[in-house]
Amino acid sequence: MATGTFDLLHMGHIYYLREAKKLGDTLVVVVATDSTVQKLKHDPITSQESRVNLIKELKMVDEVYLGHDDDMYTIVQEIKPDIIALGFDQIHNDVTIKNELKKRKLNVKLVRLPKYEGGSDLDGTRRIIQKVIAAHEFQKKMQRIEGKT
Amino acid sequence: MATGTFDLLHMGHIYYLREAKKLGDTLVVVVATDSTVQKLKHDPITSQESRVNLIKELKMVDEVYLGHDDDMYTIVQEIKPDIIALGFDQIHNDVTIKNELKKRKLNVKLVRLPKYEGGSDLDGTRRIIQKVIAAHEFQKKMQRIEGKT
Repeated sequence: MATGTFDLLHMGHIYYLREAKKLGDTLVVVVATDSTVQKLKHDPITSQESRVNLIKELKMVDEVYLGHDDDMYTIVQEIKPDIIALGFDQIHNDVTIKNELKKRKLNVKLVRLPKYEGGSDLDGTRRIIQKVIAAHEFQKKMQRIEGKT
Repeated sequence: MATGTFDLLHMGHIYYLREAKKLGDTLVVVVATDSTVQKLKHDPITSQESRVNLIKELKMVDEVYLGHDDDMYTIVQEIKPDIIALGFDQIHNDVTIKNELKKRKLNVKLVRLPKYEGGSDLDGTRRIIQKVIAAHEFQKKMQRIEGKT
C-alpha cells in the first residue's frame, strides 16, 4: 500500500510507486481526499477524482482508493495491506504509526523508501508550482514591456 | 500514433490517449521536444525527459519517442504508423497534413478524435496553470492580511 496526494504528477511520484510495487505483488494506492489535503497542506490544484483517475492509469498500480476524511487507519483496516510503503518525505512519524497499527491489531510491515535521486530532472510539486508562477510573472513583465513600445 | 506536449498531465490527455489506443493494437506516442514547444506555445513547465518518462508509465501506452526539432514528418517516416490520432484541440490542419503525408508517400490514416466531455472535472493544462496562480495570489493576500494584524 502506498499513499499520497499526487497533485501534479511528477517523476518523484513515479519513483515512489515503482519502489513500492517492488516490495510486493499487488500495489494498492490510497489517494488523500481534498479535505485531508486542505487540513495538512493547502488546496489541491486538481480534484480528488482527477487524482484518483490519473493514478489508476499508471502501469505499476493495481488498485486505487480514495482515503477517508477522519481516521487515516480506517482505510488500512479495510485494505489490510501486508506492507505500507512510506515516501522519503512523507511527514508521518514511523514510530507513532507502528504503535497505532499495533494498538489496532493490524499486522502491517512499515517500509520507509529512499529519496528519488533523479538528478537535475527532479520535478517536485512545489518546484512545478514555482515554475508556473515564474513563467506567469515573466509573461506579465513581457506584456508590460511590449505594451509600452 | 498520438502526439503532444503532455506538460502537467491531466484527464484530457488520458482521454485522448485512451481513444487513440482504441483505434489500433500498438499505441506509439511522440512527445514534442522543449524547443518545439517553445516555438509553438511557451516554455514547458516540465522537461522533455520528464514528459517522456511520465507518458511511458501510462497503461495504454506501448512506446514513446521524443520528436525531432526540425521537420514534424521525420518521426512519421521513422515510425510508419497506420493511423495518426489527432486530439480535438490540436492546431494542425487536417487537409495540410494529409497533403504533406501524400507528398512523402506515407500511407497513414488521419483520425480527428472528439472532445473530452469529462464534465466539470476537466483539468486542461491552462486551467491547472490558472489554479496554481490563483492559489499563489490568495496565499500572498493572506500573508499581507495576516502580517498586518
